[in-house]
Amino acid sequence: MEKKVLLVECPDSKGLIAQITNICYKHQLNIIRNTEFVDPDSGVFFMRTQLEGIFNDQTLLWDLDHALPNGSKRQLIAQGKKRVVILVTKEAHCLGDILMKVYDGSLPLDIAAVVGNHPELQSLSEKFELPYHWVSHLHKSREQHEAELQQVIDSYQPDYLVLAKFMRVLSPAFVAAYKGRIINIHHSFLPAFIGANPYHQAHKRGVKIIGATAHFVTDDLDEGPIIKQLVTPVDHTYSASDMVKAGRDVEKNVLSKALQLVLEDRVFVCGNKTVIL
Amino acid sequence: MEKKVLLVECPDSKGLIAQITNICYKHQLNIIRNTEFVDPDSGVFFMRTQLEGIFNDQTLLWDLDHALPNGSKRQLIAQGKKRVVILVTKEAHCLGDILMKVYDGSLPLDIAAVVGNHPELQSLSEKFELPYHWVSHLHKSREQHEAELQQVIDSYQPDYLVLAKFMRVLSPAFVAAYKGRIINIHHSFLPAFIGANPYHQAHKRGVKIIGATAHFVTDDLDEGPIIKQLVTPVDHTYSASDMVKAGRDVEKNVLSKALQLVLEDRVFVCGNKTVIL
Amino acid sequence: MEKKVLLVECPDSKGLIAQITNICYKHQLNIIRNTEFVDPDSGVFFMRTQLEGIFNDQTLLWDLDHALPNGSKRQLIAQGKKRVVILVTKEAHCLGDILMKVYDGSLPLDIAAVVGNHPELQSLSEKFELPYHWVSHLHKSREQHEAELQQVIDSYQPDYLVLAKFMRVLSPAFVAAYKGRIINIHHSFLPAFIGANPYHQAHKRGVKIIGATAHFVTDDLDEGPIIKQLVTPVDHTYSASDMVKAGRDVEKNVLSKALQLVLEDRVFVCGNKTVIL
Amino acid sequence: MEKKVLLVECPDSKGLIAQITNICYKHQLNIIRNTEFVDPDSGVFFMRTQLEGIFNDQTLLWDLDHALPNGSKRQLIAQGKKRVVILVTKEAHCLGDILMKVYDGSLPLDIAAVVGNHPELQSLSEKFELPYHWVSHLHKSREQHEAELQQVIDSYQPDYLVLAKFMRVLSPAFVAAYKGRIINIHHSFLPAFIGANPYHQAHKRGVKIIGATAHFVTDDLDEGPIIKQLVTPVDHTYSASDMVKAGRDVEKNVLSKALQLVLEDRVFVCGNKTVIL
Repeated sequence: MEKKVLLVECPDSKGLIAQITNICYKHQLNIIRNTEFVDPDSGVFFMRTQLEGIFNDQTLLWDLDHALPNGSKRQLIAQGKKRVVILVTKEAHCLGDILMKVYDGSLPLDIAAVVGNHPELQSLSEKFELPYHWVSHLHKSREQHEAELQQVIDSYQPDYLVLAKFMRVLSPAFVAAYKGRIINIHHSFLPAFIGANPYHQAHKRGVKIIGATAHFVTDDLDEGPIIKQLVTPVDHTYSASDMVKAGRDVEKNVLSKALQLVLEDRVFVCGNKTVIL
Repeated sequence: MEKKVLLVECPDSKGLIAQITNICYKHQLNIIRNTEFVDPDSGVFFMRTQLEGIFNDQTLLWDLDHALPNGSKRQLIAQGKKRVVILVTKEAHCLGDILMKVYDGSLPLDIAAVVGNHPELQSLSEKFELPYHWVSHLHKSREQHEAELQQVIDSYQPDYLVLAKFMRVLSPAFVAAYKGRIINIHHSFLPAFIGANPYHQAHKRGVKIIGATAHFVTDDLDEGPIIKQLVTPVDHTYSASDMVKAGRDVEKNVLSKALQLVLEDRVFVCGNKTVIL
Repeated sequence: MEKKVLLVECPDSKGLIAQITNICYKHQLNIIRNTEFVDPDSGVFFMRTQLEGIFNDQTLLWDLDHALPNGSKRQLIAQGKKRVVILVTKEAHCLGDILMKVYDGSLPLDIAAVVGNHPELQSLSEKFELPYHWVSHLHKSREQHEAELQQVIDSYQPDYLVLAKFMRVLSPAFVAAYKGRIINIHHSFLPAFIGANPYHQAHKRGVKIIGATAHFVTDDLDEGPIIKQLVTPVDHTYSASDMVKAGRDVEKNVLSKALQLVLEDRVFVCGNKTVIL
Repeated sequence: MEKKVLLVECPDSKGLIAQITNICYKHQLNIIRNTEFVDPDSGVFFMRTQLEGIFNDQTLLWDLDHALPNGSKRQLIAQGKKRVVILVTKEAHCLGDILMKVYDGSLPLDIAAVVGNHPELQSLSEKFELPYHWVSHLHKSREQHEAELQQVIDSYQPDYLVLAKFMRVLSPAFVAAYKGRIINIHHSFLPAFIGANPYHQAHKRGVKIIGATAHFVTDDLDEGPIIKQLVTPVDHTYSASDMVKAGRDVEKNVLSKALQLVLEDRVFVCGNKTVIL
């Protein structure tokens, strides 16, 4: 018996759950878990169904396509590891946490390669037998640098790009090339402290809690759909660099939790938000 | 258009979601939200469906009864406030929080009466125009005291009893009379520190976090199905009585959150656990 | 034996702790707890010392004044309840939580009066035998309204003003009249969502955590020194009004925790931040 | 200018802070931070003073010894990395997190070696150029196994032993050999679920929060002084093995936070508790 996940996204109408689950029943598939949500603002219906049984993908999708309203999207996803390329700059903690979680089996991920605009993390990547590509941005236009990045990335055909403290702003063209497939960690509790040096901003403002945000990347810097946020308390004894250090655990934890959700096909994008089923 | 909640609990089998949602669809009812869970240990299927439409309860339940397997339980619950009797001893914070939340509309609850084995909370109850019954346990056997409590409680025909820091151990007979309908707050992070003086036990052990647990009451003291738990950090500067004080906010917050879940018909009991849909 | 708290704030220099604790020792006072902090940016030394013994305030302060550098501030505060006036608009939960905590002895506070720009909370205040002043802002200039508020407030000579969801922006003149003595609860995790309707902003942005902030009021709206922040997780199923409701517990908890800190004379203001000893 | 930490532990008496800080002042040392605590049960005074200046250790300690009451302990600790030996069994996450934190500079630790009773973590240790000693317990008495462990450990003369999911119960003799210097991570929120298979116990009990506890090891299994505890919420959808997985992040986070506290010389043992200054 196989396990697959069915994702459906369509305009809401009465009877959708009955129709979809009927088709699954007709196909003798067992529903292990089913979750759905209707976004009240857009009227979009989202459903995620974990199925178990013997699949005939073609007829199942055919049946669904005939039952669902126009404008529906549906996907039937076989179990298996997603393939990612990780982009980094110099900081090791987010990359390191992902490497360790893949190493000990906590994150069911296939890391195709690590790409950095600096050479610092080559050694760490190679400890885990991963190809590391140093694609420097120095003396290159953004276009040229991104073209080089894309060439390396595309050679691995990843499902997702993970920006694990990749400290470069990406152009709309680059973002468009991987639409909905770039996951970033921003080192603040968005929308507080957008932009550069969030911990210094937080220190200056005297906040008592700091945080980090994992989100999909869109054209607007730090404005994409939020997947996960975590926080940690701080106090007056924290310097800005103490906050940076305290933030590392939050950053790596929030990124790996967001990855976990994405890898389990639980994250839908709904306008500028996420629906997590 | 009315809103109702359908609760189903039955042995798991293939096609249950399809069957139930089909019946809803046949009745022209719109599913606002649907959640289900199969307990892998017992093989019991639980489902909670929020419905909207014009209800014909009798035919809907008839259809369900013919579709569901033997041994199924189903309930169709109209929106409306649950009726509770609150039992107290001397401490005001849990009662006070419920009174305030009912007062400001946060908890959709109908408090029928407050019953205390001490007179201390009469004045607070009466501020909120609630009948208060002082049923002292002094110079009475447990049986006699509980018989008096039952007489008062039953005169109000409550849906639930809420033990808001009611510091008396209840007999199996009493518990049986309100099976599955008594909600207690225990002032520890169960199963740590079962029994008396949990904060003193916690202080003695030098824990760095304390908590509180809202649970259904069963025959075994502090052993019933847990509905909700919350915690708060403490440190070496906390005396046992500082812990008592810090615990008050946790206790009141966990009790009102548990009540909220129960009032929304989201809590199923599954063996000695809860399933919260 | 009495207990008092000594607060010192002065330019940092070597030997300050020794000098101050020597003076306490010379006065045969026992130090129950001592905490200090030097702000590295401003070079200001803050110290809070809980003392026990027989106090001769005049000679103790004389000795301190001769030992401490120019520009020092020191205060010797006898134990006792602070006197507050609470300002409200229509929402009951923050006021109600303070009332309940004073009622059950959790907050050692003397509530002199409640002042509202609407009549809604009169009944609640009077349940707890508190004078309520309805000072409507309708058909009045801000100056006129604030003059009326001040007249009522000043008749009670409070130590602190507590804005318990008082939904009016205060003028610099009003703030100056109670400099460093106005505590506000802002219904967001500042500096995210400054200004109006923070929960609607948060909902629109799709955040996964919401929060509330207790702070001292300064001329800049929502920009004063932060005393305490708390957060609570939310998800895609929360409407803006669900967030409002979820936020109520956070708001009341953060406000009463901030009050607790202020009442224990633990909060120093350091530029636009707080130092909490 | 050097930085050192002075730790004092002695019977409480009036004037201790003044005496100690006077001596520091006399030695022209600047106090960067000073924290103290008197345990009300035992009457023991604890103080930690971060000092900066030019140190004459011998005369400073001589002065302290003459000022402090009989039975005092004092230590003057130069800045520098502590040396640890890490003991492991098969699980990689706690070891991996420490390795990564040392690698990226978050934990100022000198890992002398990793010792395992299984060979599984050799490869991981060697990625980070650390000696790994496989000391199997098979076909050996506990005494014999511990004698072999001690031989390996003592060859490195570590300051602390870190049990990073080392799944062997240690004998009193072994514990005594490293008194107060063994830090363990227990995979439950102690004192709940002492002993074996805590996640299975937690799952069976239906708790809504799980946790982990870092503590010093004493003769009584899982009963030593607690350094740090952390928790994470779970729900009915978690199987016991989901709890195991969710617990990993808590375990590694609590262990590295406890290590951080110990490395900064902030943890005193007071009876069966810790005082963290």
